[in-house]
Amino acid sequence: MSFREDGQAALDWAARYLERVDELPVLARVEPGEIRSRLPATPPERGEPFANVLRDLDDVLLPGMTHWQSPRFFAYFAVSASEPGILAELLAATLNPVAILWRTSPASTELESLVLDWTAQLLGLPSGWHGHIEDTASVSTIAALAAGREATGGRVVVCSEEAHSSVERAARLLGLETRKIPVDSKFRMDADRLDLGDAAAVVATVGTTSTTSVDPVAALADACAAAGVWLHVDAAYAGSAWVCPEFRWSQEGVDRADSLVVNAHKWLFTPMDCSLLWSRKPEALRAAFSLVPEYLRTSDEAESLSDYGPALGRRFRSLKLWAVLRCYGREGLQIRIREAVRLAERFEGWVRDEPGWELCAPRPFSVVCFRRTASDDENEQLLARVNASGDLFISHTRLEGRYVLRLAVGNERTTEADVRRAWDAIRRESR
Amino acid sequence: MSFREDGQAALDWAARYLERVDELPVLARVEPGEIRSRLPATPPERGEPFANVLRDLDDVLLPGMTHWQSPRFFAYFAVSASEPGILAELLAATLNPVAILWRTSPASTELESLVLDWTAQLLGLPSGWHGHIEDTASVSTIAALAAGREATGGRVVVCSEEAHSSVERAARLLGLETRKIPVDSKFRMDADRLDLGDAAAVVATVGTTSTTSVDPVAALADACAAAGVWLHVDAAYAGSAWVCPEFRWSQEGVDRADSLVVNAHKWLFTPMDCSLLWSRKPEALRAAFSLVPEYLRTSDEAESLSDYGPALGRRFRSLKLWAVLRCYGREGLQIRIREAVRLAERFEGWVRDEPGWELCAPRPFSVVCFRRTASDDENEQLLARVNASGDLFISHTRLEGRYVLRLAVGNERTTEADVRRAWDAIRRESR
Repeated sequence: MSFREDGQAALDWAARYLERVDELPVLARVEPGEIRSRLPATPPERGEPFANVLRDLDDVLLPGMTHWQSPRFFAYFAVSASEPGILAELLAATLNPVAILWRTSPASTELESLVLDWTAQLLGLPSGWHGHIEDTASVSTIAALAAGREATGGRVVVCSEEAHSSVERAARLLGLETRKIPVDSKFRMDADRLDLGDAAAVVATVGTTSTTSVDPVAALADACAAAGVWLHVDAAYAGSAWVCPEFRWSQEGVDRADSLVVNAHKWLFTPMDCSLLWSRKPEALRAAFSLVPEYLRTSDEAESLSDYGPALGRRFRSLKLWAVLRCYGREGLQIRIREAVRLAERFEGWVRDEPGWELCAPRPFSVVCFRRTASDDENEQLLARVNASGDLFISHTRLEGRYVLRLAVGNERTTEADVRRAWDAIRRESR
Repeated sequence: MSFREDGQAALDWAARYLERVDELPVLARVEPGEIRSRLPATPPERGEPFANVLRDLDDVLLPGMTHWQSPRFFAYFAVSASEPGILAELLAATLNPVAILWRTSPASTELESLVLDWTAQLLGLPSGWHGHIEDTASVSTIAALAAGREATGGRVVVCSEEAHSSVERAARLLGLETRKIPVDSKFRMDADRLDLGDAAAVVATVGTTSTTSVDPVAALADACAAAGVWLHVDAAYAGSAWVCPEFRWSQEGVDRADSLVVNAHKWLFTPMDCSLLWSRKPEALRAAFSLVPEYLRTSDEAESLSDYGPALGRRFRSLKLWAVLRCYGREGLQIRIREAVRLAERFEGWVRDEPGWELCAPRPFSVVCFRRTASDDENEQLLARVNASGDLFISHTRLEGRYVLRLAVGNERTTEADVRRAWDAIRRESR
């Protein structure tokens, strides 16, 4: 193959995709097994031109994609792979360093530390925290809870009923129990009902998955400090909002956390995967993970980030975050975060003003929880019709036993016209 | 920014890098902290042009890169990010799907299953095994051992003294003990000294990190079957060699493994990260990891690969492996694997024939363990001088207490002239 020619074709494909993603049905319209059935069951014996890959990407795979890059992707947490981030991934794959140790990739190791410090500054976090990148918040949480177990010897992970399922998954992996604390009427952990018996760690969430509610981190920090329990803050989604001072009310107490996760691939415009994990007590992460065999011993006095998490070989994830921070700057990030919140606020207002609809939770950031004032079944069927329309993709949750629709703004390409079109489609399908 | 213009510049950068990587010193010539000190300590307030990123990549970061793409990178396990793999990463970042559930990315989910089946066919593995992709072998091993713990209730992970350090790290994470079995004179686990008391799992290695020795998998499979212990095979490096029938002697017994890891980013020409995990008992992986909260419930009858490992959000890793398999075919993979082994064999022959040098272990694949017939100190200093020369990068290990040099062939761009130049440099520096 010719890297320049095939690369040009791939780049054209990428550019055209970004230009037309707006026109594609957001949720894939395929049945399970359909995509696979259109591809050969056996691998090729001889090599094919790269052009065949691009052709099949269009003809076979694309109809089976759910378009997370669509400006009307409003499900779960909407994300963006920004243009600087995408191009940085091309460069990272070209360089392909494997940062097992500092010396196997000094530049990517040091850039990773630097961009974590940059991001900490942008978010207004305390200085001096140790940061590194894991693939996903699930793995960041595993690393944080392993450190908590190491530091405390406790056997229980405490979180709210609204904490992300990855907390329970992580606890199970680590052989720890999970204790779920009830939430108050605003879906925040009820600190009065906290039980820290035999606790290794508390996971406080800033921006829960269902409603983006904010746990009382300051109160939990007090309790954890008094009991000698590790405090991990899961701000995977909402932490990015801290780039704007007006959202730092939700950061109260976070400065006393032992560890903190913010996913740059959620709301910092960085392609998957790029989960940022900071810790005030990196020695506990090192105690949980560091183990250096002879074939990796060097005389370097430098830090290897593989000592702070489960993976040994580490790819060049910092490059894409660096590219985004460089090309957007603090100002560019703030503009995008504020616009997402403004659009969610607009949508919230339309729901509030429309008879026959109700809001189901406070909206601190860019996610609106709402429903038709009707049965759960009707709302569930409405969701199915809305998503089948291709106009948009939203997801659901269950709050106080009721089926609730969620609209999450976060894709950087989303405009007010997109949110308007979403609301029009939702009302149309509800008739 | 203009995606097409900046993309063109990024693509040019990538093409030029691949054209000139041969001329760059393989091991970075920087001191710890040096790269970081050349970058601003604070993030930019306003966005900058993408061209600045490329400029600093050249001026600041490149001198701090250790060039894993160099044809004279012979350390650890040499890897390659092939051209189809690199371009596929551009496309994957452009599409940026997050495969939490089947429906959030049907095409990437089904392509992942398909390419794992394709690769199983290429490697001659039993049909019907369940496959998915993790980021690294460390995490694949965590997933496999979690399944083993789930299936057996045992508390001990058994492996040889030569097993990869990630096995002990994984066991520690899971709260399991590690029991190391001695090796025989060829660095293979001594099955006669196997102790399966309270064992959850045995990790057998096909291609250990120090010497690429092959544990007696068939005997271990017999013992595991009799004792009801999970058998995980770590073929992270050497498993790729099975694409050639002449290396399938090392696969004996693997058909009876409960799980198997092969890293496509090691010796299948796929950029980081792409660790392939197969299992004969996927229900045990599901039992260890599956946990579906309300906001992720759907009526789809389709499989979500996040049920089989620690991460919930999964990026489109299958695309790059698919591109490599399409563009190289079985034939292209075999040619590259055989050439790497041939070059290692050549090097081995030169060492054998040269007075004052010795071979230190059998060479089943593409890694040669050797040393100067001299003190450990002299060999250690030789390694430092060789790597400082910039001509090549090799690493070391310790075998039977002695300091040993390792030359690993695996980069697809390596030619006989590169191996020759390496040997000339090593002899030159030994004088």
